[in-house]
Amino acid sequence: MANYRLSTLQNWMEQEGIELVVLEDTEGRRNASLRYVCGHPSDALFFFHSSGASLLVAWDLPLAELYGTADALVAYSEFQRSPVQAIVGVARRFGLARNARIELPSGMPLPLVESIRAEAPEFSFLCRYGGAETQLKELRSIKDAAELDIYREAAGITNSVINDLVQGFRDKRFSTELDAALFIEAEVRRAGAEGTGFETIVANPERSFGIHAFPSFSGAGLGLDGPTIIDFGVKLKGYTTDVTLTIIRGSLNPEQERMAALVEEAYAAAEAALAPGVPSTSVARRVDEVFEREGFSMPHSLGHAIGLEAHEQPVLRDRKELETTIRPGMVLAIEPGLYAPEPGGFRKENDYLVTERGIEKLTQSGFFRI
Amino acid sequence: MANYRLSTLQNWMEQEGIELVVLEDTEGRRNASLRYVCGHPSDALFFFHSSGASLLVAWDLPLAELYGTADALVAYSEFQRSPVQAIVGVARRFGLARNARIELPSGMPLPLVESIRAEAPEFSFLCRYGGAETQLKELRSIKDAAELDIYREAAGITNSVINDLVQGFRDKRFSTELDAALFIEAEVRRAGAEGTGFETIVANPERSFGIHAFPSFSGAGLGLDGPTIIDFGVKLKGYTTDVTLTIIRGSLNPEQERMAALVEEAYAAAEAALAPGVPSTSVARRVDEVFEREGFSMPHSLGHAIGLEAHEQPVLRDRKELETTIRPGMVLAIEPGLYAPEPGGFRKENDYLVTERGIEKLTQSGFFRI
Repeated sequence: MANYRLSTLQNWMEQEGIELVVLEDTEGRRNASLRYVCGHPSDALFFFHSSGASLLVAWDLPLAELYGTADALVAYSEFQRSPVQAIVGVARRFGLARNARIELPSGMPLPLVESIRAEAPEFSFLCRYGGAETQLKELRSIKDAAELDIYREAAGITNSVINDLVQGFRDKRFSTELDAALFIEAEVRRAGAEGTGFETIVANPERSFGIHAFPSFSGAGLGLDGPTIIDFGVKLKGYTTDVTLTIIRGSLNPEQERMAALVEEAYAAAEAALAPGVPSTSVARRVDEVFEREGFSMPHSLGHAIGLEAHEQPVLRDRKELETTIRPGMVLAIEPGLYAPEPGGFRKENDYLVTERGIEKLTQSGFFRI
Repeated sequence: MANYRLSTLQNWMEQEGIELVVLEDTEGRRNASLRYVCGHPSDALFFFHSSGASLLVAWDLPLAELYGTADALVAYSEFQRSPVQAIVGVARRFGLARNARIELPSGMPLPLVESIRAEAPEFSFLCRYGGAETQLKELRSIKDAAELDIYREAAGITNSVINDLVQGFRDKRFSTELDAALFIEAEVRRAGAEGTGFETIVANPERSFGIHAFPSFSGAGLGLDGPTIIDFGVKLKGYTTDVTLTIIRGSLNPEQERMAALVEEAYAAAEAALAPGVPSTSVARRVDEVFEREGFSMPHSLGHAIGLEAHEQPVLRDRKELETTIRPGMVLAIEPGLYAPEPGGFRKENDYLVTERGIEKLTQSGFFRI
């Protein structure tokens, strides 16, 4: 675990006068920043004191002993597996002064924050955007050398799965969406990855109109002509890639060809615009312009950063309040797409590393005509 | 969609003087109550007005047209895919009076509630435990006839997967955890289910000490003697089952035999105690007593309700504040288990329907010696 992550947080805490930062990862409130700072994969609370001391409260103690890197480790059962008891208990254990400022996770439900405040009125609990979690998300948006090593390895596995998948379609080895989805899952795990990074989507031409097909894959056949969308990620040591293939079987009708060509054009425009130093909004705007010119609009963002979560910051959308500068060290998924019930859906998605000089394409997905 | 769900909510709103109830299901804030009241599976906001009018704001419009049952349907893009804009916009569209009481989801993060309040100070936004969502969770805890039909079908599929899985182990058809996990996924989807209800766990004797093994399944082999834990669910029309098998290969050492026997004893005690009218805590206490007598303790709850989510209310634990009366119509998963790094883990889990007269065992999982 890179120490600069916690020392950066510690410096920030000093500036802000924060005594204790609390991170929580639990069912319904997942937060990958916990794994980012202490290695433990899930179901825990992490406490970081302004002195630099850390404490992990874990649901599964043997798992935490294997993965966690905090100074101290406590079983969640010691606090009756209650976040209120754990947070208040640890704050008192650290001997915080009256009115000490304690930063709670920004995703914490309002009634839960109220319960914590009621239980320990002697402390000043903060729950806000722009606090400790924002600092950590900012840090997570620029990958370090260890993270880039993981990404190169994950991209290698991803590319090999893409190749095998396309070959499998050419060889007619998949008769249903299920076959293709399970093939991906098996290849990914056999390659030593933790698994797929999110629920794999395999949507045949009758179902590919859905942005996220529901269910994400089914027993439906793959024999129809038209576009089949396959969206998957390889999760290695916590970090996921995110790619989308559109497998095009047979010949397309003119409307489908028009959509496919537009997505390719938009993709090329995004790739050309993506560079260190440019505003994230301008990349998204270039794509919107391509689609708008032909009377189309895309129902989702152009892209997003990837990392310990499939969707991280920055998000690539043409909205002023989401604007960020594209910076070296960012790993971004670009995924223009168009969808309609009749013609089906077309999406092309790859992952890029932003470098000092430009961009480096990590994955090799796209449209594959078979 | 059963209308009593919304009419019950409407009656409650009238008593509470609530003009509008808001439900949200989005990445990071999943809420199955949305699907429960309007059929749409995910990524949407649902608004229910005291007049009985409903409105669905969906990210994927074609999907919502297929599944949603609200009176009106609006694309999320009309509100820039911002929950603040959607909630405030819909409240104004309904023409709510000044100071109208609007119930927000109880899981909404505090800073988001503050943004909504700042954007529309003319309304009175509630965000609390014990509000509309509590009513819906209460309703969801008692399954209706349509839900029980689904559960009988899902249990049938689950039992057939259990049989085939055990036979596969006997026939040495699975060489790795991955093989067994993908076998489950394939059988479940081929049977017409939406998928597995949560991430399947297959943990061989070296990994079964984890309550939730990490990763949940891997390329690790299944040839070792000892307990392998397999935990999976069949998700049919949104509803999931939840069962755990412990496959015991070879002979156990005395410590393992002792743990296995204790889990069986605890399981039998829970099954004997589970009945309509009894307090949920008393069932859990019976199991705790069995384990404590021998100096063990279980690191998780005895069980929980199942439904549109894998973990629903009530939770079966011996904690006063979680106490509920076991009632007819509840579908509960009972899952005593013991874990230690050396001996490995033993867990047995099945699903039960509580009836007027007693309980009905829906699934047939358990310990299987091979």
